[in-house]
Amino acid sequence: MGWNDKSGKKNGVEERGFDLVVGDHTVPGVYWAPIDIPSERLVLLGHGGTAHKKAEYIVEIAEMFATEGIASMAIDGPGHGDRAGGGSAKNVNAFVKMWHDGGGTDLILEDWRASLDFIEGEMGPRPTGWWGLSMGTMMGLPMTATDDRIKVALLGLMGTEGPNAKDLLKLAPNVTCPVRFLVQWDDELVSRQSALDLFDALGTSKKTLHANPGPHQAVPRFESRASVEYIDRYLR
Amino acid sequence: MGWNDKSGKKNGVEERGFDLVVGDHTVPGVYWAPIDIPSERLVLLGHGGTAHKKAEYIVEIAEMFATEGIASMAIDGPGHGDRAGGGSAKNVNAFVKMWHDGGGTDLILEDWRASLDFIEGEMGPRPTGWWGLSMGTMMGLPMTATDDRIKVALLGLMGTEGPNAKDLLKLAPNVTCPVRFLVQWDDELVSRQSALDLFDALGTSKKTLHANPGPHQAVPRFESRASVEYIDRYLR
Repeated sequence: MGWNDKSGKKNGVEERGFDLVVGDHTVPGVYWAPIDIPSERLVLLGHGGTAHKKAEYIVEIAEMFATEGIASMAIDGPGHGDRAGGGSAKNVNAFVKMWHDGGGTDLILEDWRASLDFIEGEMGPRPTGWWGLSMGTMMGLPMTATDDRIKVALLGLMGTEGPNAKDLLKLAPNVTCPVRFLVQWDDELVSRQSALDLFDALGTSKKTLHANPGPHQAVPRFESRASVEYIDRYLR
Repeated sequence: MGWNDKSGKKNGVEERGFDLVVGDHTVPGVYWAPIDIPSERLVLLGHGGTAHKKAEYIVEIAEMFATEGIASMAIDGPGHGDRAGGGSAKNVNAFVKMWHDGGGTDLILEDWRASLDFIEGEMGPRPTGWWGLSMGTMMGLPMTATDDRIKVALLGLMGTEGPNAKDLLKLAPNVTCPVRFLVQWDDELVSRQSALDLFDALGTSKKTLHANPGPHQAVPRFESRASVEYIDRYLR
């Protein structure tokens, strides 16, 4: 397994699909790189619950990174997208079940590491960051805490109450790279206090919290743009 | 009363002092403008407790604004700097006493309005913002809430526990312009919850909170720089 035939070019970005066998399952992934400029840096994009690796906002972020000469990659989360049995969780309980049935924190860490190994094998190692909110933080905080290839992370929209809250609280003190952490002040899915507590638990001294009014999915566009600038700065 | 002889030029910025009689007292102020470029916008700089209108960090911010073609002005806070009886509060109790002896919220609002009137009379009205942390927010939140000449504000390092907490809580819902609000996550003078509560009470939907680790006075330099960019953007 490796690159598949799901490739294409759009908005100055080349997209290439891949499938990897990790343990007893297959991990569907995608890699984006700017077409006309070299990409000497890489960002891992973790999608949110009920979305998938090529959700519209993930592709948009990939295109923003490409503009800065930064390649990116994504894989489907547990039970999401093109995974076996993948679908879209219809409510919070279904989402929690998908997360655990999909193997939870340990398995998704294996999947991300294998995927990063694959891309590094193909393209060579490069300064690498993480970008992921909500379930993208459920995956990304553990990855950032345990894989020293991750040099900077954009995290947020998650707290100490989700399906892998215990893992997040245990691993947060091990996050030592710069982190920007986004909070939606009126988040209906993640309680404000729980999000603040998770930020509080991060071990790095280079952490900044940005909070904006509005519900879970209403992250302002200026924060998305600024998050790309932020990661860009720390991968130089 | 008006301009005094405390003027000078430094780092591309012209500094001019002024004294105004407001009611039964004299308000000492200072105005900064870039020398070589026109200044078509203005920012009011509110200094923190125990500092004064020409404290080093205030002058630094004035110089940063000048680089963007933005003039700025400051006055001494109640009981501070060149005010009658002005000095430096040695502890929190002394600071609270200075604030109240100096007339509190109502009087400092009169002083700021008279000072802005004076500068507008001399230079003409321009798009105007507020920049002030700690006591700079004790003065600036009321000013932003009640004077519609203020179009954007940088506030923070203050909560619902200070000497004019009741005024702040009462006026915060009337703040309707864009606000960036800075919090020091380990603030030893303003409790975290109190700061979050004050941010929560702001009436504007265009508010963003930025929190960074460290004590009250350790606002990171990148936040100062970014605050200048922020105000610059909204005064264009």
